Amino acid sequence: MNPVIAIHGGAGTITRASLSGEQETAYHAALEEVLRGGQEVLERGGSALDAVTEAVFRLEECPLFNAGKGAVFTHAGTHELDASIMDGRTLAAGAVAGVRTLRNPILAARRVMEDGRHVLLAGEGAEAFARACGLKTVSPGHYFTQARHAQWQRALAEGRTDLLDHDAQALAADMKIGTVGAVALDARGNLAAATSTGGVTDKRVGRVGDSPLIGAGCYANNRTVAVSCTGTGETFIRLLAAYDVSALMEYRGLPLAEACRVVVMEKQPAIGGLGGLIAVDAQGNTCLPFNSEGMYRGEARAGGPRSTAIYR
Amino acid sequence: MNPVIAIHGGAGTITRASLSGEQETAYHAALEEVLRGGQEVLERGGSALDAVTEAVFRLEECPLFNAGKGAVFTHAGTHELDASIMDGRTLAAGAVAGVRTLRNPILAARRVMEDGRHVLLAGEGAEAFARACGLKTVSPGHYFTQARHAQWQRALAEGRTDLLDHDAQALAADMKIGTVGAVALDARGNLAAATSTGGVTDKRVGRVGDSPLIGAGCYANNRTVAVSCTGTGETFIRLLAAYDVSALMEYRGLPLAEACRVVVMEKQPAIGGLGGLIAVDAQGNTCLPFNSEGMYRGEARAGGPRSTAIYR
Repeated sequence: MNPVIAIHGGAGTITRASLSGEQETAYHAALEEVLRGGQEVLERGGSALDAVTEAVFRLEECPLFNAGKGAVFTHAGTHELDASIMDGRTLAAGAVAGVRTLRNPILAARRVMEDGRHVLLAGEGAEAFARACGLKTVSPGHYFTQARHAQWQRALAEGRTDLLDHDAQALAADMKIGTVGAVALDARGNLAAATSTGGVTDKRVGRVGDSPLIGAGCYANNRTVAVSCTGTGETFIRLLAAYDVSALMEYRGLPLAEACRVVVMEKQPAIGGLGGLIAVDAQGNTCLPFNSEGMYRGEARAGGPRSTAIYR
Repeated sequence: MNPVIAIHGGAGTITRASLSGEQETAYHAALEEVLRGGQEVLERGGSALDAVTEAVFRLEECPLFNAGKGAVFTHAGTHELDASIMDGRTLAAGAVAGVRTLRNPILAARRVMEDGRHVLLAGEGAEAFARACGLKTVSPGHYFTQARHAQWQRALAEGRTDLLDHDAQALAADMKIGTVGAVALDARGNLAAATSTGGVTDKRVGRVGDSPLIGAGCYANNRTVAVSCTGTGETFIRLLAAYDVSALMEYRGLPLAEACRVVVMEKQPAIGGLGGLIAVDAQGNTCLPFNSEGMYRGEARAGGPRSTAIYR
């Protein structure tokens, strides 16, 4: 099996007009760097699980993406982060929701999975668990970036006191969604998926989107596929988007690309959803579809070139 | 379409030996009363959504069941409640997780769904939303029952500082899981599902099970089926149990009973899961399977008799 990894840094109304040449260059470089981290894990014979953990860790550390450092602001001016991870070999899964003090939510999700007793921990309970595991905590200032703060201020000024990412128009106007994720297949044929996010700018405190929900924003199963989603979280939840790709493949016999097309191009738009997903199947095929104007993304095979892209 | 409703009050190691005759009578009477509430809504021409809301509301009000009043204790001696609801006509859904002050979590879930901007709100954010909707709050004492307190004390005394419901052995020893739910089909052919729970005795603070997760513990889709689950929440999450029944019907063409059998009798046990579910399909067929020793349950058609059951 030739190992492969795919990543995303969020989908939305990312147009050529909305990004400067400098910004474009910065995003490509960041995606390349993240991809390289995951690719190296696979090239060393590491597991898909380790590869997606490494890639999402790097995406959380990079201030350009809405996860970890660079997370968006809630309506209250705080940060609430969500993350999840799933092991396609065992269907083991772990996730955290609404954490405010963890530097890397994806590492907490992984610890929840490894601990094995729960799948999802929320809020202070999740933070207490992560601290007990020795994971790094940060002050709220860690997540701060001028760009996200300006987005939040703009949302407040526009009186959108409850701007949410299922509102495609608001999203189109502000380009403020974003989730990061990675999917990988390793040399042993194991699949894994990981997703992390700061949610949506100016979100209501307590709002949980699809990112920490297994089967919605993240899913992996060695029989079928590994999937990580980004976009209007509420519609991904209602469709069980990530698991649905798997179900269409397993139960209806659709090939990867067709299963992804049904979910992203038919089912999502039918209920007002915007966004995309990245997927790698058990044979190493990849698919990175989106119905929005752009999606930060990239993919690489072990020993192969790294490709990154932003627009359609 | 002949309207029908089915309910459950939790699955677990409920044996004839473990319940006194008096307890049995009390459970049957309570299930009957809950069923009657939902049945009356349907007989008046009410919606499936109103019928499942009414039934789960009554289950939350009844101290015999682990939801609302009668909820189990967390390890910290507190109560954290979860609930969800889904409308099969529109795939609209609403849920709350980890709420500590709401009398009826199911009403909060319904408001989240009706509000339409989110699907899932957690913790204090969920409570603030519910208060703003005018829903009733209670002090922690409201949830208290002597029986649940004794269960918690027993768990603490046994040193099970982290007793969780995916641990089938612990569960067998203590009979301490429990979730309530309802599914219904109304005269207009609309399906709905609702689920509510206090979680598992002595659970870690912040633990979220399948009950508030759409597709895991609750799912409804007019094309296929309405489902509410009860049992080892973590395995229901990893299998997307509620949505999987629907996917097996829609994509593989399985009839309701066979789809339920695959999920409850094959997939769940394969990953160590214990419990059951209730389901009603778009043609009004019902199925109430469980792989545990018992499940509090009942069903009734509009104008028909009400049947309740506990054991196999």
